[in-house]
Amino acid sequence: MSVVVTNVARAEGAVIEKFAAYGVATIHEAQGRTGLLSSSLRPVYRPAHIVGSAITCQVAPGDNWMIHVAVEQCRPGDILVVAPTSPCEDGYFGDLLAASLQSRGVRGLIIDAGVRDAATLTEMKFPVWSKAIFAQGTVKETLGNVNVPTVCGGALINPGDIIVADDDGVVVVRRKEAEAVLVKAAAREEKESKVRARLQAGELGLDIYGMRQRLAEKGLRYVEALPEE
Amino acid sequence: MSVVVTNVARAEGAVIEKFAAYGVATIHEAQGRTGLLSSSLRPVYRPAHIVGSAITCQVAPGDNWMIHVAVEQCRPGDILVVAPTSPCEDGYFGDLLAASLQSRGVRGLIIDAGVRDAATLTEMKFPVWSKAIFAQGTVKETLGNVNVPTVCGGALINPGDIIVADDDGVVVVRRKEAEAVLVKAAAREEKESKVRARLQAGELGLDIYGMRQRLAEKGLRYVEALPEE
Amino acid sequence: MSVVVTNVARAEGAVIEKFAAYGVATIHEAQGRTGLLSSSLRPVYRPAHIVGSAITCQVAPGDNWMIHVAVEQCRPGDILVVAPTSPCEDGYFGDLLAASLQSRGVRGLIIDAGVRDAATLTEMKFPVWSKAIFAQGTVKETLGNVNVPTVCGGALINPGDIIVADDDGVVVVRRKEAEAVLVKAAAREEKESKVRARLQAGELGLDIYGMRQRLAEKGLRYVEALPEE
Amino acid sequence: MSVVVTNVARAEGAVIEKFAAYGVATIHEAQGRTGLLSSSLRPVYRPAHIVGSAITCQVAPGDNWMIHVAVEQCRPGDILVVAPTSPCEDGYFGDLLAASLQSRGVRGLIIDAGVRDAATLTEMKFPVWSKAIFAQGTVKETLGNVNVPTVCGGALINPGDIIVADDDGVVVVRRKEAEAVLVKAAAREEKESKVRARLQAGELGLDIYGMRQRLAEKGLRYVEALPEE
Amino acid sequence: MSVVVTNVARAEGAVIEKFAAYGVATIHEAQGRTGLLSSSLRPVYRPAHIVGSAITCQVAPGDNWMIHVAVEQCRPGDILVVAPTSPCEDGYFGDLLAASLQSRGVRGLIIDAGVRDAATLTEMKFPVWSKAIFAQGTVKETLGNVNVPTVCGGALINPGDIIVADDDGVVVVRRKEAEAVLVKAAAREEKESKVRARLQAGELGLDIYGMRQRLAEKGLRYVEALPEE
Amino acid sequence: MSVVVTNVARAEGAVIEKFAAYGVATIHEAQGRTGLLSSSLRPVYRPAHIVGSAITCQVAPGDNWMIHVAVEQCRPGDILVVAPTSPCEDGYFGDLLAASLQSRGVRGLIIDAGVRDAATLTEMKFPVWSKAIFAQGTVKETLGNVNVPTVCGGALINPGDIIVADDDGVVVVRRKEAEAVLVKAAAREEKESKVRARLQAGELGLDIYGMRQRLAEKGLRYVEALPEE
Repeated sequence: MSVVVTNVARAEGAVIEKFAAYGVATIHEAQGRTGLLSSSLRPVYRPAHIVGSAITCQVAPGDNWMIHVAVEQCRPGDILVVAPTSPCEDGYFGDLLAASLQSRGVRGLIIDAGVRDAATLTEMKFPVWSKAIFAQGTVKETLGNVNVPTVCGGALINPGDIIVADDDGVVVVRRKEAEAVLVKAAAREEKESKVRARLQAGELGLDIYGMRQRLAEKGLRYVEALPEE
Repeated sequence: MSVVVTNVARAEGAVIEKFAAYGVATIHEAQGRTGLLSSSLRPVYRPAHIVGSAITCQVAPGDNWMIHVAVEQCRPGDILVVAPTSPCEDGYFGDLLAASLQSRGVRGLIIDAGVRDAATLTEMKFPVWSKAIFAQGTVKETLGNVNVPTVCGGALINPGDIIVADDDGVVVVRRKEAEAVLVKAAAREEKESKVRARLQAGELGLDIYGMRQRLAEKGLRYVEALPEE
Repeated sequence: MSVVVTNVARAEGAVIEKFAAYGVATIHEAQGRTGLLSSSLRPVYRPAHIVGSAITCQVAPGDNWMIHVAVEQCRPGDILVVAPTSPCEDGYFGDLLAASLQSRGVRGLIIDAGVRDAATLTEMKFPVWSKAIFAQGTVKETLGNVNVPTVCGGALINPGDIIVADDDGVVVVRRKEAEAVLVKAAAREEKESKVRARLQAGELGLDIYGMRQRLAEKGLRYVEALPEE
Repeated sequence: MSVVVTNVARAEGAVIEKFAAYGVATIHEAQGRTGLLSSSLRPVYRPAHIVGSAITCQVAPGDNWMIHVAVEQCRPGDILVVAPTSPCEDGYFGDLLAASLQSRGVRGLIIDAGVRDAATLTEMKFPVWSKAIFAQGTVKETLGNVNVPTVCGGALINPGDIIVADDDGVVVVRRKEAEAVLVKAAAREEKESKVRARLQAGELGLDIYGMRQRLAEKGLRYVEALPEE
Repeated sequence: MSVVVTNVARAEGAVIEKFAAYGVATIHEAQGRTGLLSSSLRPVYRPAHIVGSAITCQVAPGDNWMIHVAVEQCRPGDILVVAPTSPCEDGYFGDLLAASLQSRGVRGLIIDAGVRDAATLTEMKFPVWSKAIFAQGTVKETLGNVNVPTVCGGALINPGDIIVADDDGVVVVRRKEAEAVLVKAAAREEKESKVRARLQAGELGLDIYGMRQRLAEKGLRYVEALPEE
Repeated sequence: MSVVVTNVARAEGAVIEKFAAYGVATIHEAQGRTGLLSSSLRPVYRPAHIVGSAITCQVAPGDNWMIHVAVEQCRPGDILVVAPTSPCEDGYFGDLLAASLQSRGVRGLIIDAGVRDAATLTEMKFPVWSKAIFAQGTVKETLGNVNVPTVCGGALINPGDIIVADDDGVVVVRRKEAEAVLVKAAAREEKESKVRARLQAGELGLDIYGMRQRLAEKGLRYVEALPEE
């Protein structure tokens, strides 16, 4: 029942690289506020910002055997996405596996569990988003799956999906939607940079976004002071 | 039922600035161990230390509309304090709102919810204490209140209260008690700096504070080893 | 019923210092994946790495009196290990106690509760692993124990045990097992450095560890694509 | 600095009793979705439903001394509301204090901490909403306050406020707003009972509430199947 | 971007009913330890055990509008599965919606958020698995989706999947795998009932499962007492 | 490195049975507020109250193999105490293992992890205190230890220690201290029953315990109302 899918369709590298211009929040907005992984996945060090193509890996609780299997499936530009089949914060991943992934050109790790060797990962500049930092070791006894659709951090990740991760968290973009999302992200970024300039100049969002009338219609009242009870 | 109170009585600026000399722990002690917000409110970056006058803002879960309304009520020297009406860790606040507040001279944000654009907030040096960092976006559909008394992080905050926040958390000081608290904080700081010097010189707290007799009276015994079972 | 044990058998200093060459994960592995404290104990600042001999201290919830008592029992090279008798995240420990410990040559604090003055602790370079950073003050009313066996972070700590703490967490080594653990840690480190070199050179863990046959025996299958449903 | 306020203005008993007709959710809605305490306050046994006038009590962490002081301030029809000054789940309250309150006609306890003797409290039919059930004992060393405004479960409770608690949680009603809230609660209940009958008869909320047009305007589309990717 | 898919392929009723013979743990095992939702989804009352066909509903945080839309898509034998797009424990669902679903023959609700009217839901015998019980109300402002693939409790649910829920939690079975899972569940149940009889008769699992040799090979040793340190 | 200690010294049965007269809170108080396990260990059903002699079992995360080994070491009157070597809430234990333990006269299970088959455990009247109820299955691949000193729920449990568990949680009593604790528990119970009668008759704890003078000395003041700000 345990499989490794070897032939993963990836987005074109040129498309993936374009995501590097956008943060997680922008991409999440650009795709209609979808695709975000749980806020419990935090970067081991900050700042960090990566984009890449997902290789997915399902592991048993307290067992990192399948990560070794997944490494072989990774190519330059990939991001490894690991999820245990039940909640676990053991340290599945440390500096040796990071060295291995780094030598293969992998850009980072997203893991809904714990990692260890945090100081070395930081020195190596290998970016990791994890649920915990914990020295607890794991065994190599139970199989899992590589490159099957996997729920990680509460979001569905397909192998070949595009992953973007930064200090705000992690977002997934479906491979076939990548170009459409880029268009929307660019539009949003352009709009935001104009708004940013106006806000920095002291204009109010109330005016820039034209909110005053709708607020009044909903019943917002301005008073000098609260009435005495 | 939704109101914006526009006329907030603030402490004198000179009084507020005097709080900058003290940390959160000192002020909390100076006012009899009261006024602390929950430890779940953590700074986005460290070190950070701000003092200012509270503008309060109640928002609906997943809805940051009222923050835009609150911005207009902020003046230089203010700190914006935001609390959702039910627990929520969505990213209510990002770099655009920070730019807007910064352009108005606001000193920071305390929010019992999530924020996003953490990397940019850090670069901008706009200090934020929040419950989460999470890219999840919010809508603009539901009204709330600005400048009504608000529970944030388990503490009651009135508009115009003085807020002090540092790496240890956030504390609120009632406006009318500000000067009395300053006197006590100064006294405490002076006493502590003397104690600190003696401790650094190797004296024991047991002796400096004269604790030995009371410990003995309560029944503390010194033994060379535990008795065998 | 409250005691302070004054005569703590410590490991030889030379033995303790040898642990400085190893991280928490390595030592935890070297002793058969035992001895780890809970992942909820996190360093106040990173990176940090200490080794030393445990002085244990049991405190009442919200009461740091016994820490003052424990300070006197500390010698250069010790690490203070504090656990409350019921879960508590109050700020038991701040810069004054840190100054006192530092003046006595104590190397750090492990506390299954909160600390405060985080910014000053960082400036002072006094390393602390704690469950929370929280300005909440404590009282001095209730006795506890010093240098009795104590559960901290879910692990049993005896006074005189060796403590190692780094960015991955905290591990305890029994005093009488110290030399045996060092031998295993050295062996592990040597083996890992060879493996690291091979992984950096692009070899796969699957091959270095000879995992392929056992994976196949367990039933792992490689497929080009998932079968259609 | 520790005070007991002895003269608490209470709502008329007849007004308070009228709240017994309504659940927490209804009252919370009737007052504009305000006044709810945290969902972490859960009943020790279910079902349970009480109404009464608040006596507030602030206690130190791990110290239940002030509850004994508060008991004396309680009258028949009151509900005791206890909050620690920092988070604590110790068992502040057990069958002896329950017997004492019950003998005074007190209707229940709301406590943002732990209780013990859960089996006996259930047998006695003394209703309690707490954050934890935990046998951990407390001391009697540190003062607090009785009948000062107190934040409990994230909501501000004034002595003399009306408390309603049921299986859904706990809500507070300001004393001066009690009659207005009752009017709205009655209106809501009446409206809901009509809607309930129609729903039970198979009508849809979409039609009863006339939601279809607004959903369409917002852009909701009905499709037979999702488009192929 | 918001859609309601109206034409959901369901498994045959006869197939679905066969699942009623098995608990969640058995089905989870029968499908290779997959399909389990998070343990944070707990039944409002116990015991409870339902099987049915999933109708999925994605809602905004603090906004239950789409549940009203989803009700219309439900048929007798369905189970409604609701997930917010960001974590939320507000009370999305109460006795009115339960009355509506019950009148349509819906068998229960799985919701990765809060519900209210817990006492009435229990009286009505409408089974609900939720993350919280919380009176906090919701608004009706923001669209979502009905009957699109949805992650709920960390598991992917497709509309038309089979849901089984009992006191141990909730499990999802893919529609096309239903018959194969039933075969395995029956086999497991038969095997377990034989083992149960032998265990009740005092035989040991060590012998029934033939574990002794493999334990010895792995290195398990039996000793009368631990060696002295 | 994995051992099963077969020769466990147990307290006399007659001594153990005497503990059945006391609840967890009473015993915890009788031994100076020590010995309590974490409040996260909750009974699967209430009410429940057991006493017995501990058999300890250390298991790997997600692996219940050693529980099968531990069963053989259990005798009538024992209580099985299980702790994973890293935090885990998988369902290690279900109705089959319960049947096996019940057939051997074991009185219950304490497990710092999850269990499943909660409905059947309740019907069988096999009492369990666990951290979670979760259907997630476990594997049988990794060894652990039976009857070595084990930290469970944050407390040290030696094999042969006496365990008492009820609706308030779980407490451990050292075997050699059992008779001394019984004497203190009886004294406490006798004293409490007298106090209970006086409290039920309306006397105040303030008077029974003679607290008024000490409260006044500490500075407690009674006022009719708070001073105006």
